[in-house]
Amino acid sequence: MPPSPEDDARWLATAAALSARGRPLSAPNPAVGCVIVRAGRVIARGWTQAGGRPHAEAMALASLGGDARGATVYVSLEPCAHASARGPACADLLVAARPARVVVGQTDPDPRTAGAGIARLRAAGIATDLMPSASCATALAGFLLRTTAGRPHVTLKLALTLDGAIALANGQSQWITGPEARAHCHAERARADAILVGGGTLRADVPRLDVRLPGLEARSPQRWVLTRGSAPQGWRAAADITAPGAFGDAQWLFVEGGAGAAAAFLKADMVDRLLLYRAPILVGPGLAAVGDLGLETLSAAHGRWDMGPACRLGSDTLTVYHRRR
Amino acid sequence: MPPSPEDDARWLATAAALSARGRPLSAPNPAVGCVIVRAGRVIARGWTQAGGRPHAEAMALASLGGDARGATVYVSLEPCAHASARGPACADLLVAARPARVVVGQTDPDPRTAGAGIARLRAAGIATDLMPSASCATALAGFLLRTTAGRPHVTLKLALTLDGAIALANGQSQWITGPEARAHCHAERARADAILVGGGTLRADVPRLDVRLPGLEARSPQRWVLTRGSAPQGWRAAADITAPGAFGDAQWLFVEGGAGAAAAFLKADMVDRLLLYRAPILVGPGLAAVGDLGLETLSAAHGRWDMGPACRLGSDTLTVYHRRR
Repeated sequence: MPPSPEDDARWLATAAALSARGRPLSAPNPAVGCVIVRAGRVIARGWTQAGGRPHAEAMALASLGGDARGATVYVSLEPCAHASARGPACADLLVAARPARVVVGQTDPDPRTAGAGIARLRAAGIATDLMPSASCATALAGFLLRTTAGRPHVTLKLALTLDGAIALANGQSQWITGPEARAHCHAERARADAILVGGGTLRADVPRLDVRLPGLEARSPQRWVLTRGSAPQGWRAAADITAPGAFGDAQWLFVEGGAGAAAAFLKADMVDRLLLYRAPILVGPGLAAVGDLGLETLSAAHGRWDMGPACRLGSDTLTVYHRRR
Repeated sequence: MPPSPEDDARWLATAAALSARGRPLSAPNPAVGCVIVRAGRVIARGWTQAGGRPHAEAMALASLGGDARGATVYVSLEPCAHASARGPACADLLVAARPARVVVGQTDPDPRTAGAGIARLRAAGIATDLMPSASCATALAGFLLRTTAGRPHVTLKLALTLDGAIALANGQSQWITGPEARAHCHAERARADAILVGGGTLRADVPRLDVRLPGLEARSPQRWVLTRGSAPQGWRAAADITAPGAFGDAQWLFVEGGAGAAAAFLKADMVDRLLLYRAPILVGPGLAAVGDLGLETLSAAHGRWDMGPACRLGSDTLTVYHRRR
């Protein structure tokens, strides 16, 4: 029985989930996932390796000795069509492997591919379906935004009290949240390739912004500071966050505050995801999480955020919101 | 097979759940629940009726014609031992009904009973067990606090943005939360016998504080304002919330803000339950939910609140916290 469209969507979601293994180590390449399925069973898997090579399809096909006859290849992003000094184009590898079918979850906006990968497969007589997949688009959001909008995907993280403070009025902020929430935040840092704080937070807290989880210390992202001035050693400075390419090759930017940086990204409508760690404490007037947004009416604030996953972390909670676009 | 202690605890929790039907209509009496069980099946149920009579045990026994032989009576609060012009003491009714056993979830701190109800049953040869039940204590919290501490149980409700504002800086507060959250709040009002706002909120918003749910309009609680001045018509004034009896007979006080009233109850450590309705919006600096608490350190704020139930209400969330005592 051939796979149904629902089966195809599930296999694409599997490929997208697999791609997370390459995030953010695949940089500057997108983290892509690939599963090869025959008779309803996975016979090969691949994901973009550290530094960007091998690509996901190349890894999966290599495990089959380059022979995918009778199988369906599910890949989260359109196979590349451009050969490079670092390896052949995946479209060419797939043509040579002769799968029965290729299913692609997301076209590649990179102008060097941009449909040429799918066209090359079809020209070689390989049945190729583009099935736009929300899972694939989400997994590739950083790459897609960088390529089409010149900016990374932005997560704004806030660690808050129940009444919305990120510190007491006297500046004390250690600690709002507990060790479980802080460890979770470090794991989120490890999934980013760039991390940013505002200039005030840098001066006040001198945060390390590194990943302090056993085995993940090497995953600490690039450190950025939002400032018109210069950055300290080991940091990069961003003055105009809306300038295309302001964050270079970064696909996943993790913004950790303070209020000024949060407001700057929110006013530019550049926050794609909110990560709210909330401690079960009330503190009264303290330092606000978000600076002035210039809002005149509440209705202007509504309709922007959809609630995503939520969980407890020790005595704290984590709630994720996604920007509705 | 006689009921196990776990069975007894479950039947007491059933009696406590049933007692909620009397809340707050039983005022000024406590809302009590009673189930009568024989051979593992409920044969009668009762809860304190509007205005306080009949009592739960009287209602349940009446449905059995006053004959409970061979059955076990589970009651959330110790049966009253004092006869009144409005009816006989429940301890006497139970003695006459001759149940095999009575199980009580909570002793009555009312000095007119205070153990005398259990003693009278035992003196009459009826096996009577006191099995302290958290479900019963929670269901009776308002009555227990009024009787032992001279104050009602206090719920502090806040309707907040993600970043902790209860209104924009320009005062606009309609609406933070959506219709589902507001309807839920009205249902909570209907479970209170008194509702309070601060003087500033009364002057700024002139809130109606009534229950606008079909069929529950008559359940609107007494309205209180926190002020040293006088109350407008239809309102009562509370100047010193810590004075014993400041809220009269009220068992369940629902505090709806603003920041000054919230801070007053929090500083007096009189908030037993937090009800946080949170809308998925960010607004930047607005009106804070909680006024100055005089906190110098974050550690002083920790360890006070345990997270209870949480749910989504439309696009909003509700999270309940209980004061750890």
